[in-house]
Amino acid sequence: MFPLPSAMRAALDAAAAAAHAGEVPVGAVVVHAGTIIAVAANAPRALLDPTAHAEMLAIRRAAQVLGRDRLGDCDLWVTLEPCTMCAGAISHARIARLYYGADDEKGGAVAHGARFFAQPTCHHRPEVFAGIGEREASALLRDFFAARR
Amino acid sequence: MFPLPSAMRAALDAAAAAAHAGEVPVGAVVVHAGTIIAVAANAPRALLDPTAHAEMLAIRRAAQVLGRDRLGDCDLWVTLEPCTMCAGAISHARIARLYYGADDEKGGAVAHGARFFAQPTCHHRPEVFAGIGEREASALLRDFFAARR
Repeated sequence: MFPLPSAMRAALDAAAAAAHAGEVPVGAVVVHAGTIIAVAANAPRALLDPTAHAEMLAIRRAAQVLGRDRLGDCDLWVTLEPCTMCAGAISHARIARLYYGADDEKGGAVAHGARFFAQPTCHHRPEVFAGIGEREASALLRDFFAARR
Repeated sequence: MFPLPSAMRAALDAAAAAAHAGEVPVGAVVVHAGTIIAVAANAPRALLDPTAHAEMLAIRRAAQVLGRDRLGDCDLWVTLEPCTMCAGAISHARIARLYYGADDEKGGAVAHGARFFAQPTCHHRPEVFAGIGEREASALLRDFFAARR
């Protein structure tokens, strides 16, 4: 097996940390000029913030780091297919490339549901690469929900 | 003419303030138990945050005020039809009722585009009431974009 790209490795580690904190295990990373500039884990319960998905937090932190509200020279790596909210944020932020791990048939909005990037109301579409780190990303989610049943 | 509900009045005033600050004029308000608990204006440039739409900021503030990440007993009032990102956030937050002013044919995701609340991947739908304050909300946007041309 080839090793995972370091950005997806960091996103998976953030997802695992979220699970330990009792949050649905999803992690995200923003890369700019070959460097990870933001890492975040899903944290709506800890932050008392229904918008605090990993992608949203990573995008917001990256924008703070770069001091601007558009991230057209950045890539986003996330362990799970983004939901509608996060797909919208990725578009608003002008993210260049989106790499995600596991599919989300129930809540995803890239390959499922709203398929937002294919909508005429979507004004910026990233390049999308799916399936990187999928096995580990899925296992984290499966184990998390199995332990709560 | 009947006066506007005070929540939409406050949202429109926030939108007007956004225009003065050079931001696209959209305002939003969260109401809980008959009281306005959060008011926000669109501010992605001022906050260096591509996710800082009025609805997102109002929802996040309301969650902080109430100390929880679900707002099932709250209503959201916003001057413009929410985009995909904000419609997703409204659903995640479990907002009970959504009142919005002007339609957004280019970027809206309630009556246009992704029509997110009608998707099977949408797991909470608010009741939706459109058109309240539409004329003033539209005029604010039209004047803002006309002044920038």
